[in-house]
Amino acid sequence: MAVGQRSETVRRANLSAIVRELHANGPRSRSMLVARIGLTRSAIRSLLGELHAADLVREERAALQGTPGRPSPVVRTNPEAMVVLAVEVNVDSLAAAVVGLGGDVLEIVRVERASGTASVEETITEVVELSRRLLRDSRRRAALVGVGVAVAGVVRRSDGFISMAPNLGWRDVPFGQRLVPALGLDVPVTIANEADLGALAEHLRGAAIGHDHVLFVTGEVGVGGGLIVDGRPLSGVAGFGGEIGHLPVNRSGRQCGCGAIGCWETEVGEGALLARAGRPADGGRDALDAVLDEAAAGEPVALAALEETGRWLGIGLAGLVNLLNPELVVLGGRFGRYLPFVSDSLEEELDRHALAAPRALVRIVPSRLGADASLLGAAEIAFEAILADPAAWLRRPGRVELASA
Amino acid sequence: MAVGQRSETVRRANLSAIVRELHANGPRSRSMLVARIGLTRSAIRSLLGELHAADLVREERAALQGTPGRPSPVVRTNPEAMVVLAVEVNVDSLAAAVVGLGGDVLEIVRVERASGTASVEETITEVVELSRRLLRDSRRRAALVGVGVAVAGVVRRSDGFISMAPNLGWRDVPFGQRLVPALGLDVPVTIANEADLGALAEHLRGAAIGHDHVLFVTGEVGVGGGLIVDGRPLSGVAGFGGEIGHLPVNRSGRQCGCGAIGCWETEVGEGALLARAGRPADGGRDALDAVLDEAAAGEPVALAALEETGRWLGIGLAGLVNLLNPELVVLGGRFGRYLPFVSDSLEEELDRHALAAPRALVRIVPSRLGADASLLGAAEIAFEAILADPAAWLRRPGRVELASA
Repeated sequence: MAVGQRSETVRRANLSAIVRELHANGPRSRSMLVARIGLTRSAIRSLLGELHAADLVREERAALQGTPGRPSPVVRTNPEAMVVLAVEVNVDSLAAAVVGLGGDVLEIVRVERASGTASVEETITEVVELSRRLLRDSRRRAALVGVGVAVAGVVRRSDGFISMAPNLGWRDVPFGQRLVPALGLDVPVTIANEADLGALAEHLRGAAIGHDHVLFVTGEVGVGGGLIVDGRPLSGVAGFGGEIGHLPVNRSGRQCGCGAIGCWETEVGEGALLARAGRPADGGRDALDAVLDEAAAGEPVALAALEETGRWLGIGLAGLVNLLNPELVVLGGRFGRYLPFVSDSLEEELDRHALAAPRALVRIVPSRLGADASLLGAAEIAFEAILADPAAWLRRPGRVELASA
Repeated sequence: MAVGQRSETVRRANLSAIVRELHANGPRSRSMLVARIGLTRSAIRSLLGELHAADLVREERAALQGTPGRPSPVVRTNPEAMVVLAVEVNVDSLAAAVVGLGGDVLEIVRVERASGTASVEETITEVVELSRRLLRDSRRRAALVGVGVAVAGVVRRSDGFISMAPNLGWRDVPFGQRLVPALGLDVPVTIANEADLGALAEHLRGAAIGHDHVLFVTGEVGVGGGLIVDGRPLSGVAGFGGEIGHLPVNRSGRQCGCGAIGCWETEVGEGALLARAGRPADGGRDALDAVLDEAAAGEPVALAALEETGRWLGIGLAGLVNLLNPELVVLGGRFGRYLPFVSDSLEEELDRHALAAPRALVRIVPSRLGADASLLGAAEIAFEAILADPAAWLRRPGRVELASA
């Protein structure tokens, strides 16, 4: 709890502020860095010198449009100098990507798999395979600073223990403990809930840029949620926060995969929509596509099923709007596809159930990152430690001489 | 958005860290300050010198028990040097207090009033009267740095606009705009929701000290909530956050004062309990006391009414536990009195509806500050600006010479 600030701490904080700014917001002129970071021009120059010596940033003289005189050098991150591995374990797909400093996706792979059939062992084997494939290049391997993994389940942040992933069929799985040695990479591995990571990515690079109070709601087979509160992700005491799928909304409702009755997920999840449309609840992606096609063709049963799903979406969102007073609700996953058919009934129930004051301030928008939101969020948590203290990276073995530059 | 740190910024941050530490945690030896703030002994000495010159802190040689050698001086805040006025506007009472730096309550007044009958004008007149009475002493008046006001309603933080206070019968009231000139004090006035402030106070000085993920739920005539997320209050984009009373939990339920159907408040509010116990829902405090007396005497109708209220408390709390993953739920107001009679059914529904992982980490405890929680929270928001930058206070007119000490 040492909150005072010595000069070494200050230098680290300033390095962190510059790298974060460039990573999050892209190329910047020195003048813009001076304005955004709030340091003198000479302090910025000295810190950039350190980052430049370590090849983390590059400077180019770029003629900015409409600015007379000598152009200010534009500073940008070098995406190859520092990379992370991002992984997403979802119910019906696996994905992995290598993402460079600055957020550039250098390579991405996504593989489909049959819904909910993969064991923990199979999943780990497949993730390791994807990781080897993406990190075959030795320079890329040397630039790796972290691994982030998104999982469709209730995940403890500290060690990646998965207490429950009902749609994967997993319960009490020490996923981190098994995955880390299997990967065999000597960098930190962070495992988190996919919707929490989707929220992080939409906030940094998607539909919620510049908004500090955001609710991200994603419909996959289940329903996930991620919250941004005062510009920061809400994870709760152990990383279990954001489980909006399990808000009790209907005491006389259906049994949920979590064991309880009447969770929001039982009313707005894929299964509920399929059942309302007269199909088996476990029909999966093909059945869902069919319902959406029927709705697009004006078929009344499909439209009514979506309308009722929209009502329940609105009811649940109203409670969350009252609780969190967000400026933006971002609908991701399948919910983005429902939106054209559900928005009337959703907004109607929101009007009815949300308090006028927070209601007036909130907008409902679709995800901008779509299917990649969680994967990009996994990259961001993998970068987090190094963004908080880039000085640690400058000091790593083989770089000692540069740290004093 | 200037995040870089110059030496002047650093000095201010360090002064702020010391004053906050002493304000929040009480007297500290210099050695403890060195350890807690993370600065050198000589830096701490120099900063304390500034605060001492401004009479904000005092040092005493105190022999700490069991420590051999020369006792380290103990530093404490001087509560008379800097005070705030705290006010609470509740449905059936008004309260005001003068609170000194360090949290000492120097004087407190609470007056009862008939439930929900006071107009905005009457309320402002009464608040001004209480304020004059508490600030009659000219030294106290000179030491005043802020006013904080807690209101049982949906309050916009920026200007104290009350969008809705159904149990006061107020709607769209520019309360801040009217109260500030009426008070006629030349210090900042901050107005916020009472439950948000209760949460703040319980976190700093009550049942939730040392816990960074806290849900405060208070039963007054309505139901209020306040959230602490990662150690900081969640207020949402405009301060409307925490309105847990209006989570939709029962689509086929009762009409709520907010206009919607089936809000949590309609199941766990005072009126619902009284109706279940066979009394008029608007029976007020006397009727409530009677129901609690009957329950204590083992009367079955009263016990059953409380049991059912406990069920609904558990259902709503389960959703909040899933959403927020708190380590502590603090029950305040009337809920603290219900607790002995509702805890079985509450915990049972919590087991049933909360996910196992966050459920295992949460404890339900009664408020420690009781009826004064919101008032003490109002004092804390009034201190906030000066705690963030005590240097501004040292520089104020008449103190200029001390700022350079």
